[in-house]
Amino acid sequence: MIAAAAHETVRTVDAGSYAVHIGRGLRRDFATHIVAATRAHRYAVVSDANVAPLFADALVAELEGHALASLHVIGAGEEHKTRDTWLRVTDELLALGCGRDTTVVALGGGVVGDLAGFVASTYMRGIPVVQIPTSLLAMIDASVGGKTGVDTAMGKNLVGTFHPPAAVLADVEMLSSLPIAHRRAGLAEAIKHGVIADRSYFTAIDHALSALIEGDPDVTLDVVARSVELKAEVVRSDMREGGRRKTLNFGHTLGHAIEQVSGYSLLHGECVAIGMVLEARLAERLGIAEDGTARVIEAVLARAALPIERPKALDAGAVLGATHRDKKSRAGVVEYALPTRIGAMDECGGAWSVAVGDEHVREVLR
Amino acid sequence: MIAAAAHETVRTVDAGSYAVHIGRGLRRDFATHIVAATRAHRYAVVSDANVAPLFADALVAELEGHALASLHVIGAGEEHKTRDTWLRVTDELLALGCGRDTTVVALGGGVVGDLAGFVASTYMRGIPVVQIPTSLLAMIDASVGGKTGVDTAMGKNLVGTFHPPAAVLADVEMLSSLPIAHRRAGLAEAIKHGVIADRSYFTAIDHALSALIEGDPDVTLDVVARSVELKAEVVRSDMREGGRRKTLNFGHTLGHAIEQVSGYSLLHGECVAIGMVLEARLAERLGIAEDGTARVIEAVLARAALPIERPKALDAGAVLGATHRDKKSRAGVVEYALPTRIGAMDECGGAWSVAVGDEHVREVLR
Repeated sequence: MIAAAAHETVRTVDAGSYAVHIGRGLRRDFATHIVAATRAHRYAVVSDANVAPLFADALVAELEGHALASLHVIGAGEEHKTRDTWLRVTDELLALGCGRDTTVVALGGGVVGDLAGFVASTYMRGIPVVQIPTSLLAMIDASVGGKTGVDTAMGKNLVGTFHPPAAVLADVEMLSSLPIAHRRAGLAEAIKHGVIADRSYFTAIDHALSALIEGDPDVTLDVVARSVELKAEVVRSDMREGGRRKTLNFGHTLGHAIEQVSGYSLLHGECVAIGMVLEARLAERLGIAEDGTARVIEAVLARAALPIERPKALDAGAVLGATHRDKKSRAGVVEYALPTRIGAMDECGGAWSVAVGDEHVREVLR
Repeated sequence: MIAAAAHETVRTVDAGSYAVHIGRGLRRDFATHIVAATRAHRYAVVSDANVAPLFADALVAELEGHALASLHVIGAGEEHKTRDTWLRVTDELLALGCGRDTTVVALGGGVVGDLAGFVASTYMRGIPVVQIPTSLLAMIDASVGGKTGVDTAMGKNLVGTFHPPAAVLADVEMLSSLPIAHRRAGLAEAIKHGVIADRSYFTAIDHALSALIEGDPDVTLDVVARSVELKAEVVRSDMREGGRRKTLNFGHTLGHAIEQVSGYSLLHGECVAIGMVLEARLAERLGIAEDGTARVIEAVLARAALPIERPKALDAGAVLGATHRDKKSRAGVVEYALPTRIGAMDECGGAWSVAVGDEHVREVLR
């Protein structure tokens, strides 16, 4: 399934209320796709200090052929995904006189997508947003599903909304400027999609690892398209994370906790990699996953040169404590979405997540 | 239709995804209704410095019989409906460890309802809110329809979301502590409901004015119930204000502009009263409304001792300028929802609002 298909330059995935277009060289048609998805009086492009110098001018110039357009640049990095930045971008839009007939265009990685999505969802009770992910992680995962959010001192994404985009546009050629560590980190979410829903995809990623890490655009396009398909199918069945969507949180309960305790010094995908190994071990301990599941996940992640153990500098007690501030906790008990084997998640009688006592988590954190 | 019905103590209006319960003495059953509508691990009651001393302790104590409960008091008045207050309440909830299994309970007037609704809609991507309006304006209008929001220096409700409540609970006996000016101001929205949708209701309010201003609970209950019915029907047909819901904005384009230019020294209902007279005159000028429509509205408002003219201290140019920052403006042109006669609004071919040039607005602002 993952094979170069050079003749195919654009793939479109139906994500329910919107389409995800993935292609090589798609950036040359961004404005056309944006205007087709959501005709606006004005387009407000939000980008960050890393991405804007590379791609923003061309996009704004293209959009100006159709309507008014403006550029709003935020600092790069998770530390800028705050209510302060949200307030500043909102006030820039208000100062320009942007009305409800404005569309926000998020041009960047997960931080830009989450922040710009939150601006759009709260601007005059909601205006459209088009997501243009520029990192592998954002293409594979963050740009699909409609989650928006900002961080607070208490944790990641504690403030946010569900606000599905009007369209998602991904040009895999734009990944050529991406540092290799970020490409590896992006693969963690693709591997997760394999674990939770598709064993053959999991195997295919394993076989394609070197091409993916080198950034082969056709192989990357195939992986992005398949991950988006898998994620879109899950999200369509459960937009607001009441059931099956929780499976997408595999690796994220401990992953988020590690990310927070590390002070965001590790990349999100790196933390998810560690989180998947630990949570798979947890699933085995609880008799939910087949024996050996964690080892198989561990082996693929190691081949992708992703971390598979909690850095010893991060205190186990602090990580455990951080899980209790997780959005998925209920009545003070932390819930986990756990696999039964590669390609299948525990349904838990329709709940798709299970309350796990600290004593078990403490064991896998040893 | 508006007649004392002492035997009926609770009326329930179906507002689509939630119910509105209106009654005399309903406060004694608030906790039961809240728990029935949305069972939570924790209830966070948000109230303001005026209302909390009167009603919050009893409500929190009742809720503590079912779950954890906390009280969050904000300053009273529109000047506290800000992103700062939203941030502070959100951080209080986070510090308490409130998870997604928390329900916000908004106990107060429109400011509390809008602010607490915005907190709920953005807390961990959305948790339920129960609205308990304590002002006539909030009972009649603000608590139904799911609008949330905060103000910025640029205008009212420029930041916010649509987040329908899990339930609305109104006890008309709680209005006995309301200043008479606020009772009059609340009636402006009821009169608006008559203008936009029900001529006989408009006439009935006129006949019941003195009982309503004196605060007769049974007559008030009838008016609240009828207004909620009318508003709920409009909102059910158009949740996100794409069409017919715009009719609820009658009186509000100029009303909001006047409110803003006055520095919020006038009550919202007073500004809506002035706005309705001016917009009805605009509708007559444009040949949309029957001659005499404005005069009929003016007469009822005057009998309710509501203002019907722009205070001369407010500069007409400043009011006109403020309309351009209205959320309803499109491509820089301000749109108005206008009546054709008492009880009916101009459909404008399904758009339910019409772009009006400044020259016409300037005339009615003279």
